[in-house]
Amino acid sequence: MSFRSQHLSIVGLGLMGGSLARALRGFAEHITGVELDERACTFALQQGIIDHATPDLREGVKDADTVILCAPVRAIQAMIERRIGSYLRSNTLLIDIGSTKQDICEAMGKLPVGVHAIGGHPMTGKETSGVQASDPQLYVGRPFVLCPTRRTTPTSRLRALALIEALGAVPFEMDAQRHDRLVAAISHLPYILSSALVATVAKEGQIDPTVWELAAGGFRDMSRLAGQDVAMMGDILSTNTQAVATLLALFRVQLAMLEAMLVSRDDQQLTEFLRPTREARLNWYEHYQNGQKHGSK
Amino acid sequence: MSFRSQHLSIVGLGLMGGSLARALRGFAEHITGVELDERACTFALQQGIIDHATPDLREGVKDADTVILCAPVRAIQAMIERRIGSYLRSNTLLIDIGSTKQDICEAMGKLPVGVHAIGGHPMTGKETSGVQASDPQLYVGRPFVLCPTRRTTPTSRLRALALIEALGAVPFEMDAQRHDRLVAAISHLPYILSSALVATVAKEGQIDPTVWELAAGGFRDMSRLAGQDVAMMGDILSTNTQAVATLLALFRVQLAMLEAMLVSRDDQQLTEFLRPTREARLNWYEHYQNGQKHGSK
Repeated sequence: MSFRSQHLSIVGLGLMGGSLARALRGFAEHITGVELDERACTFALQQGIIDHATPDLREGVKDADTVILCAPVRAIQAMIERRIGSYLRSNTLLIDIGSTKQDICEAMGKLPVGVHAIGGHPMTGKETSGVQASDPQLYVGRPFVLCPTRRTTPTSRLRALALIEALGAVPFEMDAQRHDRLVAAISHLPYILSSALVATVAKEGQIDPTVWELAAGGFRDMSRLAGQDVAMMGDILSTNTQAVATLLALFRVQLAMLEAMLVSRDDQQLTEFLRPTREARLNWYEHYQNGQKHGSK
Repeated sequence: MSFRSQHLSIVGLGLMGGSLARALRGFAEHITGVELDERACTFALQQGIIDHATPDLREGVKDADTVILCAPVRAIQAMIERRIGSYLRSNTLLIDIGSTKQDICEAMGKLPVGVHAIGGHPMTGKETSGVQASDPQLYVGRPFVLCPTRRTTPTSRLRALALIEALGAVPFEMDAQRHDRLVAAISHLPYILSSALVATVAKEGQIDPTVWELAAGGFRDMSRLAGQDVAMMGDILSTNTQAVATLLALFRVQLAMLEAMLVSRDDQQLTEFLRPTREARLNWYEHYQNGQKHGSK
């Protein structure tokens, strides 16, 4: 099945939503953007990214056969719980791109029976935000996770898979709990470590500000995630507390092992720990780069 | 004082040594490279990076007025402790570029009185290694730490400062202990965190290998340091155990605070922690980028 839509509605015209609109331009007769920010709407209309813009959720989604929610996790959850169910036509495919999936999929499961809802999470992004930075290639070659809900029908699952194929992304299907555990390991734990590292260096900087002057490429990479939007990350962490706490506990075990080897000056054990770790990173990176070659960057 | 050398000897023709040779080409009458690897020597001679190559340390340094040791920390320490003192002419300036400074500066302090030795650590580098990747701009705009030893004279200190000026680098003078504490915060702690993160994800990967498939840009940056050379990093960590253990203890405090806020679902406290951390990172990065603009990358 190849993806087609008579009327696609994208709720939230930021980087992710704008890029979806650009990527799906050739697969949809009509694209509506639902967005409160007038500048984003004007830009998207002028660039021909969308056909119609409205700040009103009901107006924007009531005639759509496909609706994609592109907003922070809590905002997506609020839209699903409070309003959108009564606005949608029967048989509409509702999909989202929120970073955690358990709360959202739970809320989707309580939508009216006629709504066909499935949780989504594309593993992609950019340093820059906003519809101005949107890019039809953003999803190409990148993983796009789908999590079934109680409102996912076999047909809506196939439509969602076809949508992912239209984006050029790589589908991964799994339940929401498994998704949240995996992203805790590769996204949320890294963010917490990055923030705790910056907080540690900031404490050092109170004693000796030269620490900031000497910081170079290693610190740059390890501190980048700490620069992410605090409200967005707060949403993500607070909707994935259990998995993040579990991963933190597992991380502490690894850190304690490294520290014990270091403090006991057991160079051989240290090497035996670090060597397979290095191999794992190099192997992953090679695989990751090969994937990227077929994608946008 | 501007830097001049009749005979400069660079011991170790890798990325760092090769880049030093290129950067100091116009300031030295004659450059000797001391290197066991024949391919590196051939390349450096063919490119005109050096005038003479030898695998023999004594031959390479005996006529030099300036010697720069470019090797892993333990190798530098071994050269200083075992051999180089008896090879050098009186009044030779000996400088190194090792990543930790206490052990090396201690060893330098025991050299014959006629040798003028000062510890050095340029905060720069590249993803690629080897003399083939060397770049005369590698040091431009980057910090270059100098640590005095018992063999540093006022004149040799000024010559070392002139050498740093010739490189286009930014000098920072401090004692070796302070240096080692600062780099523990910005280099060694980040490396340990990166390795412990990769080890954690590898454990997850044993349960659910899909974790590797979903890992994206955040994991890429946070895992990069774990891919560094294990022998080199083992040297660095084992010559800076105390400072690294101290920074690990300080890091654990920050991590525990974050975890407590998260698990207790205290969103306001979490935001109050993450917001200044984000600010600190953004402020540092702006400053760092401005420095980079005047440097090589």
